[in-house]
Formats: sequence, structure tokens, C-alpha cells
Amino acid sequence: MVPERTVSTRIPVGVLGATGTVGQKFVHLLRDHPLFEVAELVASPRNGGKPYAKACRWHEPEPMPDHLRDVRLTTVEDKLSSPVLFSGLDSSIAGEAEEAYADAGHAVISNSKNHRMDPDVPLVIPEINADHLSLLPSQDRRGWIMTNPNCSTMFLAIAIAPLYRRFGVESCTATTLQAVSGAGYPGVPSMDILGNVVPYISGEEEKMEREALKILGTLRDGSIQEAVFEASATCTRVPVFDGHLESVSIRLHAEPSLDELAACLNDFRGPADVATLPSAPEQPIRVLSEPDRPQPAKDVTREGGMVTWVGRIRPCPVLGYRFMVLGHNTIRGAAGAAILNAEIAHARGYIE
Amino acid sequence: MVPERTVSTRIPVGVLGATGTVGQKFVHLLRDHPLFEVAELVASPRNGGKPYAKACRWHEPEPMPDHLRDVRLTTVEDKLSSPVLFSGLDSSIAGEAEEAYADAGHAVISNSKNHRMDPDVPLVIPEINADHLSLLPSQDRRGWIMTNPNCSTMFLAIAIAPLYRRFGVESCTATTLQAVSGAGYPGVPSMDILGNVVPYISGEEEKMEREALKILGTLRDGSIQEAVFEASATCTRVPVFDGHLESVSIRLHAEPSLDELAACLNDFRGPADVATLPSAPEQPIRVLSEPDRPQPAKDVTREGGMVTWVGRIRPCPVLGYRFMVLGHNTIRGAAGAAILNAEIAHARGYIE
Amino acid sequence: MVPERTVSTRIPVGVLGATGTVGQKFVHLLRDHPLFEVAELVASPRNGGKPYAKACRWHEPEPMPDHLRDVRLTTVEDKLSSPVLFSGLDSSIAGEAEEAYADAGHAVISNSKNHRMDPDVPLVIPEINADHLSLLPSQDRRGWIMTNPNCSTMFLAIAIAPLYRRFGVESCTATTLQAVSGAGYPGVPSMDILGNVVPYISGEEEKMEREALKILGTLRDGSIQEAVFEASATCTRVPVFDGHLESVSIRLHAEPSLDELAACLNDFRGPADVATLPSAPEQPIRVLSEPDRPQPAKDVTREGGMVTWVGRIRPCPVLGYRFMVLGHNTIRGAAGAAILNAEIAHARGYIE
Amino acid sequence: MVPERTVSTRIPVGVLGATGTVGQKFVHLLRDHPLFEVAELVASPRNGGKPYAKACRWHEPEPMPDHLRDVRLTTVEDKLSSPVLFSGLDSSIAGEAEEAYADAGHAVISNSKNHRMDPDVPLVIPEINADHLSLLPSQDRRGWIMTNPNCSTMFLAIAIAPLYRRFGVESCTATTLQAVSGAGYPGVPSMDILGNVVPYISGEEEKMEREALKILGTLRDGSIQEAVFEASATCTRVPVFDGHLESVSIRLHAEPSLDELAACLNDFRGPADVATLPSAPEQPIRVLSEPDRPQPAKDVTREGGMVTWVGRIRPCPVLGYRFMVLGHNTIRGAAGAAILNAEIAHARGYIE
Repeated sequence: MVPERTVSTRIPVGVLGATGTVGQKFVHLLRDHPLFEVAELVASPRNGGKPYAKACRWHEPEPMPDHLRDVRLTTVEDKLSSPVLFSGLDSSIAGEAEEAYADAGHAVISNSKNHRMDPDVPLVIPEINADHLSLLPSQDRRGWIMTNPNCSTMFLAIAIAPLYRRFGVESCTATTLQAVSGAGYPGVPSMDILGNVVPYISGEEEKMEREALKILGTLRDGSIQEAVFEASATCTRVPVFDGHLESVSIRLHAEPSLDELAACLNDFRGPADVATLPSAPEQPIRVLSEPDRPQPAKDVTREGGMVTWVGRIRPCPVLGYRFMVLGHNTIRGAAGAAILNAEIAHARGYIE
Repeated sequence: MVPERTVSTRIPVGVLGATGTVGQKFVHLLRDHPLFEVAELVASPRNGGKPYAKACRWHEPEPMPDHLRDVRLTTVEDKLSSPVLFSGLDSSIAGEAEEAYADAGHAVISNSKNHRMDPDVPLVIPEINADHLSLLPSQDRRGWIMTNPNCSTMFLAIAIAPLYRRFGVESCTATTLQAVSGAGYPGVPSMDILGNVVPYISGEEEKMEREALKILGTLRDGSIQEAVFEASATCTRVPVFDGHLESVSIRLHAEPSLDELAACLNDFRGPADVATLPSAPEQPIRVLSEPDRPQPAKDVTREGGMVTWVGRIRPCPVLGYRFMVLGHNTIRGAAGAAILNAEIAHARGYIE
Repeated sequence: MVPERTVSTRIPVGVLGATGTVGQKFVHLLRDHPLFEVAELVASPRNGGKPYAKACRWHEPEPMPDHLRDVRLTTVEDKLSSPVLFSGLDSSIAGEAEEAYADAGHAVISNSKNHRMDPDVPLVIPEINADHLSLLPSQDRRGWIMTNPNCSTMFLAIAIAPLYRRFGVESCTATTLQAVSGAGYPGVPSMDILGNVVPYISGEEEKMEREALKILGTLRDGSIQEAVFEASATCTRVPVFDGHLESVSIRLHAEPSLDELAACLNDFRGPADVATLPSAPEQPIRVLSEPDRPQPAKDVTREGGMVTWVGRIRPCPVLGYRFMVLGHNTIRGAAGAAILNAEIAHARGYIE
Repeated sequence: MVPERTVSTRIPVGVLGATGTVGQKFVHLLRDHPLFEVAELVASPRNGGKPYAKACRWHEPEPMPDHLRDVRLTTVEDKLSSPVLFSGLDSSIAGEAEEAYADAGHAVISNSKNHRMDPDVPLVIPEINADHLSLLPSQDRRGWIMTNPNCSTMFLAIAIAPLYRRFGVESCTATTLQAVSGAGYPGVPSMDILGNVVPYISGEEEKMEREALKILGTLRDGSIQEAVFEASATCTRVPVFDGHLESVSIRLHAEPSLDELAACLNDFRGPADVATLPSAPEQPIRVLSEPDRPQPAKDVTREGGMVTWVGRIRPCPVLGYRFMVLGHNTIRGAAGAAILNAEIAHARGYIE
């Protein structure tokens, strides 16, 4: 099942922030990737020069790939030779570091928040706005930066995109129940979350309320005209390992039946070239009909963690429609999203 | 601190459904009550005649009161002599049983859902609508039935009541994160909820959307004219032991500042005679200013579990205002609510 | 990767107790099995005649196999045509039902406790005592019954078997930390286990203390002479979904070094024909060297859940040696164990 | 209920490490103490000069005492005026700091591990070895240091002390299931412990195996002759908030019946002057007869968290006897233990 490793045919990539939880997920998801091969691992200065296996407290259930155990970590000071870099850098340093790499000619596929809202940086979910990639050449650098949305934004944006296109969205509210893995490691102390809910995640609500508008925006004259609707997000942390669940209410411009709305979501497909990408799910959204689904522990790892699950579609007495949305925050909501972004960039010729 | 037990001065009460979780909470909260003294315990037929300690899998952290351990359980077939009955009966039998007791002359203080929406049965939160007690004499029975709202309704109703009175409410949405103790025992299987969220609680959303309107209703010509606004509830179960947390957005008729709204909640007091009841909290609502509160594990047991906690008051881009609400589902949301109801009924002369 | 379904070459099997958690695990693990094909599903009388998908609250993360969704459930009253039956029956009915099936000519591969200690019923872990299968023909029935041990016994028995054979065991103590899935569904109420430990599992300690002696016993003159050593087990339930962890201390007759003991475990292999069975792990025991492993959430699903993990091998001041053992209670400790038993029975000609 | 605050009659005390979890517990437990009054709060240099409420992330369920909110934190550089100091210092600095305070004339009541095994420092559990206090004057300092054992040692030592005195102990094994609060804050990352068990706590097993021997030791000619028996401890971390549960097996020199053993534990009382100390539990050990107790979530907070709970007393096929032990790790196992130590030191005239 594993493709033969022929160095000549796979593109060498670097992972920035390789010892972090997102960095590890990159390494894990790329271990048998048909297009990309992890060649360089970048970590913080204190780990520079150490073998990856020594510097990294590995969290993935499958063991660290053997051939990477002894790879020496480089730091952001060092020059890299890989044309493509996946960034899971901490936002405290991602801003400048990613720019420097892009200036140096690298294609930077970032999961960090720093450049998401830059006017010339595409904030991409391939099924929704792959056309925003055309911003890349306009970046005044030898390379470029592209980004994927925040994990909780991701599932909201995927779920409302088909509705926005078909029916128009007037306003939308979401209350999230987010997994602890979204905070990285060590992240949330167990004393804060065992048998508890923390009704606050710093900066998260602002991202959810802004990023979706850019993703759903229209490319016009080389810049993105953001979508216009009201979004309200309340973010909470719950004692769940993986999987962000979102309670969404939405007011549409049209008045579809519940069946039409469900079909609009379940039948949603991205562009044809996206559907064939190695990491693309068979269908971006799956609507579940059981009354008590989706559930993080039961649904989030299905189909490789790349599907957005929707359930409990029903009328909302206040906004018209409501439903639950679930996705895998560290796969579709982070590392998997970035890898899918790199795949579409490759498919459309931005990476060679 | 414990009042001397003088049988002559305390009113003997019966607990219906005494082996259930709500019934046990009645027994626990009434153990040193200045007005009421548990005298009769009613359970299902299969436990009839057994000593309470044998028939009951006790869940309260403090041990079962010694003087009740050997009390023989009666069943709904048996006649009771206590003038006041607290009902934690399962809804499958509460409907008929409570009517029969009221017909027989008992004052039935019920936590069950069956009669909450009956036109002549007051659905009471003493701080809000103690005046609805005047419906009691209109019940065509020798005794009467009064009820308290569903646990998740309780905290929503308490939080919006002051806003409704002061500013008017146009619409309101709530997504709840509810504790497992709300489902009773054995209730939620651990395989369903460990590290998981179940985004569905049967019948709960309907109760939340309807009951608040009756509670906030106005007594006119001997009947209740319900409040009129749109309410939308989404209910989820989270791996928390005690405490229902609710993410609320609300559209008001007026446009108070956030400080005015916070003051309206924090300064809210019920009628003067309610504030002095033995189980009444010093203030019904407490507004927390920390950005990450209220939290179930940290706030729900404070002040005897009778306070409704509000936090994160901030603007909502869609509905105008939003905040978090938390309360103790089995105390203020169930047994404690019923006891407070009995206390106000006694204070106002409906129980002698 | 899935073998082509050729009905003629796979042996039709029935699953007894098909709607239970062990029954579902049978169905799940057998979905692409090269030797066996699920053909009949047996449930309790109240589900007789219903389609499997309707009668069954499915717990496996992957969906129920499509071709079984509409299979009508039969009951223990009905005659079955499959030569091989996997039993996940509740112990309240397994005793008689399994005998009746064996009398009727079926090969009954049981996970239930009822017949484990019967003198003529082999209690088998193929890597350890596949030779006990020779008891099967001595059963005075047209078919036969074979069993696998209790889930917590399984990992203890696998871990001590190589030590017993090489060094001799004088005595052994184990304290277990067992997952909630071991109690089936609905099983452990969440109110009992959230943020808690229950230091008692009815009947479990007795099984652990007895079953291992039979498994390690010697076949002599057509009957099993049990091993002789003292075993002490204390069983607790912890808020973990899958995976039984055991803290083991052991006194051996010999005094190997820690390295020799670790090698004895890690190098342990069963008979050659067992190692090639479809469900057999590459090696039965894997010794982990990290100081804080094995851990249920990190190790238990690795390698298909069929490996027994050992870690923290170190001296015990009281009994000489101690270590931690971990295994997947519903796979290697239940359904997977029974399937491996069926595979060895087939390989050795007891099933045709 | 709160004693009148008469500054003249209460002894001013300082809390070292006041912002840590143990330090906060000191502040919480001393809030209405009849003998001691918190007057000085010492924290790390980076918090020096800040008001306590600003520097401290408060974890206790009841709010920080009002009169301490604005107290300015001092650091270990500063001179203190309180004669008695409670130390919850991190072990990285406790060693030198506590010596310096003792040299300066303070009575240092420490919960830190650093000086526990010093020959002239008493390691005290008042009910067991209050006589070891007579070592205090032999310390060559103007003040002195006394210590309490590690949290997991505490409950083991209390449970075996009466057995040791009455029957003699030959050997003893314990496997612990320890709460996350034992690791302080932030302590155990939620990603490590949600739905998981970590079978390793650095340094903990060594403490358990050594400290009990000193506590049970005999004072002879001004020094402690340690008890002699084999002890083996295996320590695990479980997803429980408060409460260490221990599975104990023990070999005695005598052969009491189970009832005699239970009575020996339940009837155990410390010296008469210990029983009347403000923080002393009514009886040090309570034996529970229910088959599934003690349980952390149900028993650990009862009776102020100062009782050691024992249950499941039964024969051990290997060592003779076994039982479960439970205690509150941050109260009886840490801050509460130190306060009880200060109380006995005061009662016996070592503090004036």
C-alpha cells in the first residue's frame, strides 16, 4: 500500500515547528505521501542539532517514522533546501519566519494565524476557494505564503459555504465545544478541564467571526472582496481529546426545506481537480441522520479525519435553521488542511 | 447550627420517588430543614416495605441521615399522612400519581414535567413569579400541585427574567452543555460520554423553548398570559458531573450598555419575602468578571448550589448581547428549586 | 487489500449475542476475514426477526457492514446452519445455550465464562496452550466448545507464561486498572466513573486468580493438570474507554537479570503454526523501554489490538520482579481472542 | 462560626510558595484557624511586590480570603517576621531556603521533600509518631524544620501503622492510582491523562518505599531507628481530580482474623492530645464495609479531607492480607498534614 520511495519523484519538504503537535501531525500524515517527502525538520534553537527522536515528545499513536528518528533538527536560523515548507510554527515567531522563508524562495504552506488576513495571502479551503490561489504570484517575494483557517473556523466555513453559494447567508451564530488537542502540548492543564468546561479560548472567537468572510470572499481585480454577513461565535473547551463540535444557527436569504438544505450540504463537491487530490475526502461534508450525531468520539476519526460531519438539521425559531457540525481539529482543521492546500497548489502549477 | 428537632414545629413531608437521584437530593437537602421534616418515603412497588437504606443506592457525598435508614418505603398505592409531598417521580407515572395525591388533599411540590404546562398549575421560580401561586386555589382539588421548571430552563429563565422585565426580550438562543447527573442514575452510560459530547437530549429543547414563556407570563383574570418572544435551544451532554452551562445570545427591545446589562443581572432581587426563605441564595444571580468563568467544576457548588452564575457578558454581532450562564442542575435546577417553592408556598399561607 | 468474497471458500459462521458489545466486535473483526464469513446473527428473543441494523445500537467506529444491515436476527430457539459459532452470549444464558449448540454439532468458540473451567473444555491462548485443543474430541457431544480467558486474565497469562516456562513462578500479584468497555453496554453508569475509580469488579478477581492456572496447566492422560502457584488479583475500574492496565509483581523460582526477563518476554513466540494465523500479532508481547509506558490511550490500538504490551520491568523489593502489562480488552481480551482460537482450531483440523 | 479575629491571640504565620497549589491550600485551610493567622505570603522573585490576588491563579473552590487579596508578596530574599512558616516551596529551592529560615529562628513546617530524610528532622504524622518532635531541639539552628510525608506515603503509613504496632509487618506492596492535583498546576497536561492512565510518577515510588520506615521508626538515644520491612510501590496517575487510592497487600508477623484487622484499623487513635487538635479528624482511619468503597469522587472530601479511608479488607493469597486505602492528597496528604503538624508542635510547646 505504501508507494515505493523514489527520491527523484517526490518533492522534498521541510516541516517548521516539527516538535510541536501540529508539526508532528505533518510528519505523521506525510509519512507515505505520494507527492511530498519530509526531508528537513525545523525546531526551536534549544533543540537545534538534536536528533528528532531525542528532541521530540511524540504524541501520534503510530510510532515516529524510522527514517526520521535520527534526522538532525535545524533552526529558523539555518538555510533550508526544500522548496516546500509546512509551517506549524508558534504564532509568536511565525510572522517573521514565514516571511523570511517566502522571501528566500520557499513555498510556505502555513497553519499559523499570522498571515491569514494579509490581503495578498490566500486563506484557502480547496473545495471552496481554490481560485484564491491566483493571489500567490502577486506576493512580492521570490516564494509565497498560503494559509488555512483556524480549526474551529474550518468546519463552520465548510458547512456554510454551500448554503452561502446556494441560498445566501444573512447571519450565523456558533457555539463551539472544542477538544483539548486544539491547544497543543502541554496546552490545557488537566486540573482545568477534567470534569469541567472552560467557556473561553483566547482569540478564537475573533478568528471564527472574521476568517470565514475572507474564505467566502470573491476575487475581483486581483484582490478579495470579503463576504458580508454577521457572524457570532462563542468558543468553549470540553474534556474531549480530538474533535471540535459546533452548534450552528443560520439565517438564509432563501427559505429552502430542511431536505433541500441537507441535500445542499451532503451533495456539495469542490472543483473536479480538488476531488482527486490524495488527501481529499470522497465528499467534503457528510450529513448524518441519526438524532444524536455527530459525536467527537464516534465520528471524528472516520474517513481519515478529513470529512466535516453535519447532523441535527432542524428549524431554528430565531434564525431559521440550525444544525451541529463536527470535524477533526488537528487533521482537517490543521495539518491535513495544509497538506490539502499544498496538493492543490501543486495540481494547479504553483509548486513544481 | 442544626435546629433542635421538635416534631411539633416542623411540617412532616413525604418524598415521592425517594430512591431516585432527585428523591435522594430532597432527602439530603431537607435533612436539617427548619420548616419541613421528612416523614414518609415513597418508592416503586418492588421496593415497598423495604428499609430505605436497603432499597436505595445512595449517591450523595454525605451519608444517608441515620434516622431515615430504617424507614420502610411505601408505594403510590399507600395512603400518606404528610400534608406536603415533594415529587421526584419518574414522568412515566408522575402525571396520574400527583393528581391522585392532590385530589386526596396533599400539597404536591413537583419536579416532574407532567403538569408544568397545565393552565392552572403554577410553574414557579419564587424570585420571578411567586405571584403565580394564586392559581393554586383555582385547582379543582382538595390539595394542589405546583411545579418548578426543567433544570436547563431554570438558569435560562432566571438569567433572562430581569432583562425581560427591564428591557424587553425579542428573541433568544441557547446552546447548553449539560452534566450527566441531569439524566439520573444509571442514566448516561460511560461508553457514551467518556471523552465525548452527545449533541442531543430527548425532549429537552422543547421544554427550554416553552417553559420560560409561561414563567415570565402575566397573571390576568386568573390565568397566565404567556410571554411572547422567540426562543431557540440546542442541548448537549458533556462529561461533567454537576452543572449545566449555557451559551446564550439575546435580542432586547432596548439597547442597554454592557455595564447596565450586567448590573441588571447582578442587582436582581426577588420579592422581599423570597429573599428571607431558608433556601434562598443571598442574591439570585452573580455576575463573574473573570474572562473564563463561570465553570462547572469551579463555581457550581458555591453558595449551596442555589446561585445562577453569569459571565462573559459581551456584544453579539447577530442578536445584540451574549453571555454564559451556569447553575447546579440537581439543586437549583431540581430538588433545591422545589424546596424553595414549598418555602414560598408556606410563607404565603398556602401551606400551614 | 480486502480478499475477494468467494462464498464457496469461506466458512459460514454465526455470532451469538450479536447485538452486544462483544458480538459487535466479532462482526467488526470478521468483516474481511479470509477464513470465516458472518452468515447468521443470534440475539435475544425480543429482537428476533428484526433486521440487524434496527435491533442493534452499533458502537464500533466503522459503520456496520452493509451486507449485514438487513440480516434478520434469529434467537437461541432457532436452528442454525453455520458450522462455527462465535459466542458473546451473556453468562446468564451462555451455559445452557452453548451446550445445546455443541450437542447439535456446532463448533462453539466462546468468550463467555460459563464453561471455561469445565475439565473437558480447553481454555486457550494459542501462543501458550494450543495443545489443549486435543481435549475437544473427548467432549461427549456432536460438536464442541472451546473458550478464551477473561479479559484481565488474558494479559496476565500471556505475560507470565514465558516466565513460568523459563524460570518457574512461585507467586504473583496484580492490581488492574480496567476500561469501561469491559463492562459492556450500557455497563458502567457515567455517574459512577467520571473523575472516579471504582475499586471493585464483581467476580473478576476470582477469574484472574483461577483461569491462569488452567491455561498454564499440562495435558496429561487426557486431562489438564493445573499449574501451581499463588495468584492475587485486585481489580479496579478507571475512566478509560479501552485497555486494561495491570501492575504485576512476581516471584520466580530462578533469578534472571532484568535484561534476561525482558528478553524472555519480548522474544516469546508461540508455535510456528500460530504465528501465521490471520489474526496473530507479529509477536505476542512487546516490551516498551520508555519509563512511562504502556499507556491505554497511546498503545492499546496499535498493531490491531492483538499485542500484549509490557513496560517498567524492574526489581520488586517484596516479590523480586515487577512490571506493567497492557492489552486491548475487547480485542485481544475478548472477540479477537476467540477469533484467533477459531483460526488455530481450523489450522489444526478441528474445524473443516 | 468563625472565631473572632483577635490579633493578639493568634500566631502570625507565613506561607512559603503561596501562589502554588499547596500554598493556596494552606491559605484556604488556615482562613479561620483558631491558632494561626496568615500574615505573610512568600512567592517567587518574579511575583515579588505584587498583590496576592494579582499574582495568583486561585484554584480553591471558595474565593481567596478578602483580607489577603491585597497583601504584597515577598520573596525568599526578604526577611520575615512571622515565627511560624508553612512551606509549600518547590523542591528545587526548598532545601536551602528552609534551612535559611530555620537558621534565622523560624519554625518551618514543611511539605517539601528535601529534608524529610534528614536524621535530625522529624517526619511526622501526629497520630503515629508525635514523639519524634523531640528531635527538634537537637537541630543546630535558632529555629527548626519539621516535615510531613509525601502524599501517597501518608495514607499507606497511616494504614499500616496500627498493624505494625499490633501485629508486626514483614512486607507490603502498594499500587497507587493518584489524582492529577498531586502534580500541582499546571502539572499534568490534559492530552496525557484524558481517558488514560500514566503508569509512572517520577521519584514517587522511592519516597513511598523509604519514608514509611522512618515514620514508623523508634526514637532511641536521640535518633530514629527506622522500622525494618520490605516495601514495594508502583505509582500511577489516573484522570481523577483529588484523592489517591492505593491497592495494598501486606504480610504480617501475626495472623489476625479479618475482623481483628478491621477493628485494629478502625479503632486506631493517636495520642490523646492529638485527638483534640483543631484539624484532627474524629478518628484517623475509617473502615468502610461496602464492597466497592472507598472511591475518590464519593469519599475523599468527607470529614474535611483529613480521614484515611480503608475498604475491601480481605485475604491475599500471596501476602496474607489486602485492602484499599484512600486519602485526600492535597489536604491530609499535604497542606492539612502540615497544619496538623504545626498544631501538635504548638500543643507540645515547640511553638509558643
